[in-house]
Amino acid sequence: MNSIQLIGLEGIPEVKPGDALAAHIIDAAVRRGAPLERHDVLVVAQKIVSKSEGRLVCLAEVVPSTFACSVARARSIDARLAELVLRESRRIVRMNERVIITETHHGLICANSGVDYSNVPQEGWVALLPQDPDASACRLRDDLKERLGVELAVIISDTFGRPWREGLTNVAIGLAGINPLNDFRRQKDDFGRPLRATVLASADELATAAGLIMRKTSRLPVVLIKGFSFEAGDHSMKELLRSKEQDLFR
Amino acid sequence: MNSIQLIGLEGIPEVKPGDALAAHIIDAAVRRGAPLERHDVLVVAQKIVSKSEGRLVCLAEVVPSTFACSVARARSIDARLAELVLRESRRIVRMNERVIITETHHGLICANSGVDYSNVPQEGWVALLPQDPDASACRLRDDLKERLGVELAVIISDTFGRPWREGLTNVAIGLAGINPLNDFRRQKDDFGRPLRATVLASADELATAAGLIMRKTSRLPVVLIKGFSFEAGDHSMKELLRSKEQDLFR
Repeated sequence: MNSIQLIGLEGIPEVKPGDALAAHIIDAAVRRGAPLERHDVLVVAQKIVSKSEGRLVCLAEVVPSTFACSVARARSIDARLAELVLRESRRIVRMNERVIITETHHGLICANSGVDYSNVPQEGWVALLPQDPDASACRLRDDLKERLGVELAVIISDTFGRPWREGLTNVAIGLAGINPLNDFRRQKDDFGRPLRATVLASADELATAAGLIMRKTSRLPVVLIKGFSFEAGDHSMKELLRSKEQDLFR
Repeated sequence: MNSIQLIGLEGIPEVKPGDALAAHIIDAAVRRGAPLERHDVLVVAQKIVSKSEGRLVCLAEVVPSTFACSVARARSIDARLAELVLRESRRIVRMNERVIITETHHGLICANSGVDYSNVPQEGWVALLPQDPDASACRLRDDLKERLGVELAVIISDTFGRPWREGLTNVAIGLAGINPLNDFRRQKDDFGRPLRATVLASADELATAAGLIMRKTSRLPVVLIKGFSFEAGDHSMKELLRSKEQDLFR
């Protein structure tokens, strides 16, 4: 019927290392009266995934390198934070006096390698991105399947900046059970002519849409999306990453 | 209730120069049984706006410059198309053997200055972006207000590529009645600490979400979004454009 619903799952408690996210999500969905059904998409904020996996670091335990110290000094940031940003990165894409844009070990390009203070309960601690966000999404999908008998698509999202445009939007940093790209290149437009260059980034579109509900200050780390028809299957967020050779902006 | 609905308005006829989009949209909403209400957001595909404004060009009438001919030759594209791409641009941001990324006169950075063959009924014609997409959004918003007595937010969207990531997503290229940025910088996270660097690009998030319904091959150029609370007011898509001085990728 050409209608999509985005439902924020409220009341997920503060997630601790080792927590089963699937249990929290099912509880929240029950409370919300929103059944988790086949063909639904679940978008989960990276922060709770990282917390459940214990990807939290106490800055007091980080010893910064000489390079990290010099990077930090030029930007008036904590040298231990700079050290983690560098450790989580494969290379630096750009730096100026305000930001460090890196390519993470996963191949994601973002500010500070995704290392972030916000919504981490312990003062002086930061959260890192999950080590393997596709694997995190798979585990959650499998766990939900085991508990509910239902196969969903799972997308792990984070909030990234973009070149050229102000403001952040959510993108997909990990996924399971969904083709992240929707290829219309072999289809025709409304007048029977082939569509050129039209591959839509469905997983990013879904993550961004979920961001409309997943605001930073509201405790809403999980959004259930109903009514979007997607191609199921085994895929990876790597399909969303343009290769260096194809990229004009690295 | 932390729930957002995206409703595709079907059955909008092929738009012709001079058509009142507001009338088409109201008809489609009535048929859909979806009332247009205060605080709703209407996302409208650029293509129908361009058509209603007569922003269509017959390639046979375009005389390419020497530079356009050389640009076209290196990429095996139509020299008259290259001429339009150059005319619609303020400067070339990057070129390779496949694409031309330009900054349009509006300040948008995208492939081919947004000049596009798809879904244009006349063979050999192309559509240009609206001359002033904010003004287009304002006119539509005013016309809807006059006909319905209701103040909506209007966003005009187009489908753009991004650096680093595969696949296209919708972004806002014009808007009326909505603050395109949602600034959380003075708010606190869930643990009472200030949120750093968190300005969300709401208008782009809304445009991208609408893209989930507005697929290229389905005649669905208008999506109604209900349940998103936004800051109303006089704003411009220019607020979404990062200044050249602040940008690391130009």
